[in-house]
Amino acid sequence: MRCEVLAVGTELLLGQIVDTNSAWIGEQLALAGIDSYFQTKVGDNHARMVEALRIALGRSDAVIVCGGLGPTQDDITREAIAAVMGVRLELDDEVAARIQAMFESRGRRMPMNNLRQAEVPVGATAIAHPQPGTAPGLICPLGDQVIYAVPGVPHEMKALVEQAVIPDLTRRAGISSTIVSRTLRTWGESESGLAERLAPLVARLDAPGQPTLAYLASGIEGIKIRLTSKGSDELAARASVLEVERQIRVELGSLIFGVDDETMEHAVLDLLRAQGLTLGVAESLTGGMMGSRLCDVPGASDVFRGSIVAYASDIKFDLLAVPPGPVVSAEAAAAMAAGARRVLGADVGVAVTGVAGPAPQDGHRPGVVFVGLDLGAGAVGAGVGGPESFEVHLPGERQQVRQFAVITALSALRSRLLEGGSAH
Amino acid sequence: MRCEVLAVGTELLLGQIVDTNSAWIGEQLALAGIDSYFQTKVGDNHARMVEALRIALGRSDAVIVCGGLGPTQDDITREAIAAVMGVRLELDDEVAARIQAMFESRGRRMPMNNLRQAEVPVGATAIAHPQPGTAPGLICPLGDQVIYAVPGVPHEMKALVEQAVIPDLTRRAGISSTIVSRTLRTWGESESGLAERLAPLVARLDAPGQPTLAYLASGIEGIKIRLTSKGSDELAARASVLEVERQIRVELGSLIFGVDDETMEHAVLDLLRAQGLTLGVAESLTGGMMGSRLCDVPGASDVFRGSIVAYASDIKFDLLAVPPGPVVSAEAAAAMAAGARRVLGADVGVAVTGVAGPAPQDGHRPGVVFVGLDLGAGAVGAGVGGPESFEVHLPGERQQVRQFAVITALSALRSRLLEGGSAH
Repeated sequence: MRCEVLAVGTELLLGQIVDTNSAWIGEQLALAGIDSYFQTKVGDNHARMVEALRIALGRSDAVIVCGGLGPTQDDITREAIAAVMGVRLELDDEVAARIQAMFESRGRRMPMNNLRQAEVPVGATAIAHPQPGTAPGLICPLGDQVIYAVPGVPHEMKALVEQAVIPDLTRRAGISSTIVSRTLRTWGESESGLAERLAPLVARLDAPGQPTLAYLASGIEGIKIRLTSKGSDELAARASVLEVERQIRVELGSLIFGVDDETMEHAVLDLLRAQGLTLGVAESLTGGMMGSRLCDVPGASDVFRGSIVAYASDIKFDLLAVPPGPVVSAEAAAAMAAGARRVLGADVGVAVTGVAGPAPQDGHRPGVVFVGLDLGAGAVGAGVGGPESFEVHLPGERQQVRQFAVITALSALRSRLLEGGSAH
Repeated sequence: MRCEVLAVGTELLLGQIVDTNSAWIGEQLALAGIDSYFQTKVGDNHARMVEALRIALGRSDAVIVCGGLGPTQDDITREAIAAVMGVRLELDDEVAARIQAMFESRGRRMPMNNLRQAEVPVGATAIAHPQPGTAPGLICPLGDQVIYAVPGVPHEMKALVEQAVIPDLTRRAGISSTIVSRTLRTWGESESGLAERLAPLVARLDAPGQPTLAYLASGIEGIKIRLTSKGSDELAARASVLEVERQIRVELGSLIFGVDDETMEHAVLDLLRAQGLTLGVAESLTGGMMGSRLCDVPGASDVFRGSIVAYASDIKFDLLAVPPGPVVSAEAAAAMAAGARRVLGADVGVAVTGVAGPAPQDGHRPGVVFVGLDLGAGAVGAGVGGPESFEVHLPGERQQVRQFAVITALSALRSRLLEGGSAH
């Protein structure tokens, strides 16, 4: 069973919105063991949507069309699918009643446009949206093949794909083979450096039935190593992936900070939690990004106490007790880390100050960042010295410098916590 | 001239990385007046890359291939393009020397793998990377058509597309027609509601040469209205877009908060700047996201002073002087806004506290958020009453609730600043 994704919307082609839906659907297909070899984006144009659907049906068993189901004139996915099926659209009374009821329950009048969303190609089935919403999905059979249509609004799309599309696909496929995939996340070594260190292992894996290995440079997420094994026996595939992971860990050690969805934030919060420590943050150029990323991790609240975003210099001096002098400096970073510990009542403080750009500051060019750490007396990794700091030069533009600053600071904290941990 | 984008990487299909490159390239093509009707993603597979290239060349004049130029075994874009061209690869001595020199300048040994990056299809031209890097781009002519190859690393890709690919495409196209596009950003009305209010205008626009209008529901970015005009006379196209914008503004008024790249953060910072006010933030469930988004705006530092991320409750009490009681409440939000003003020495304070989920808190279910505002005595929009707050119920999961909380708070602040402004 091969299934591909067709994302619809001129705004996707014009780059006014990034298509995150296809990536998410791709992941669900992989997890369900369904091959997916192509993803296409096409504009809100009838002829080109029909062409894209025909190409997709020429090489795949199923197509998931995402977007173009809205109530407005430029939403023409229903019409394009009907054309490929060679049928007309008809009003589905049940869907129409549901849409009307939804508007009434919210005390709103239904714009007549919304009735367009109740039109269904003859022979297709409307998928009721599990949450109240106005855009139903469609299951449109064409002989042995099938086209699914789901809305482009991410949370509506996800509910329909999880609850209707994937189960229908799996049933049609009579799934007998599984893809097992595991991603090891590294920080601190280049892609080609990793490839060279793992070359002997990769050579040994070059045999049928062995997992494949791929590198993925992910910018501020570090470099990922993806292991993939495919086969009819899920347990055997999983075991072979885990065995290769074991061999990679022997070679790379603590360069691997996480697995799959585990970010550097996960790694740091887990280490702190294991050592019974709380964390306070002080930020300047990152403006709150470090705090925000830490809070992305569910359960962060038992470790993360808060962050002082001291964007203006006098807040660094007055609230964080940074000594007079340049605020982009090693001294300021160390003082900010100590200030975060004190003001936020945390065991460990981490701080960043630096120049995001585009203009230089305090005589430093954009990309110069100072990281401060204060592990206090209670931390396992604490040395004799109190607050410490170091300077790094980060590449890229404003936004990238800020993102690299966050992961660099968190990675440094991780290393210090690991050092301390291993010494005990 | 039609140009399409082919993004290469199995990790894109598996959803392990979101393809932001294609969106960015699509935007550059639109700005350059080059039609782009399809974007495709394909895995690191020779046969399927060749198939995707042939389909693209069957309907477009040019293809930009993004990714698969790295030094490792799964990077096979060079080989696939050579196959489509019907030529072999040869080592480009100049590129090889440049790669070697780059490694030497950093005092690092060059892994032999990296020499793969100096291989070029016979007849193609390597594009030197303007910044030191190891992945050169390629310009590969095929008769009247052309394939460009650029790396998948965003900042390397962007430099090559801007400095080599777009100029080459424009020269080949002898560009004579332009697309003028302008996006009006709205907050506070549904997509179908906007469509109904603008229906009479859209009916009038249904004539040759008139701009087209499309809606784009962008979640936390609100709903965008995109106006597009295409023609040989750029000034005339621009004028007709501006005239339609004028008519839309008459109908929608302050629902429009920005144009094109202007976010709600821009709108709020601009209003504060115009009124000579500084801003302090207090955040709980958003963890620093509000501060981080404000800092994304270049020049934020003359208005934005900082943010207190009070994730732990006792920081709300001790640092922000929130009165004893539940921290997810109208009282807490108002006190946090006042605390942000005082602690950060700002003219205006804005605060959010609430439940991001998945678990309920203080008897409130996920999505319940309280927004606090304190415009102080100096603000133009200040009433008689001091800090104020209100409750909203936001949809979606943890991350979406947090993002909606940020824009809801900023939108409320914008409305208050506008009210005050219009009353004087």
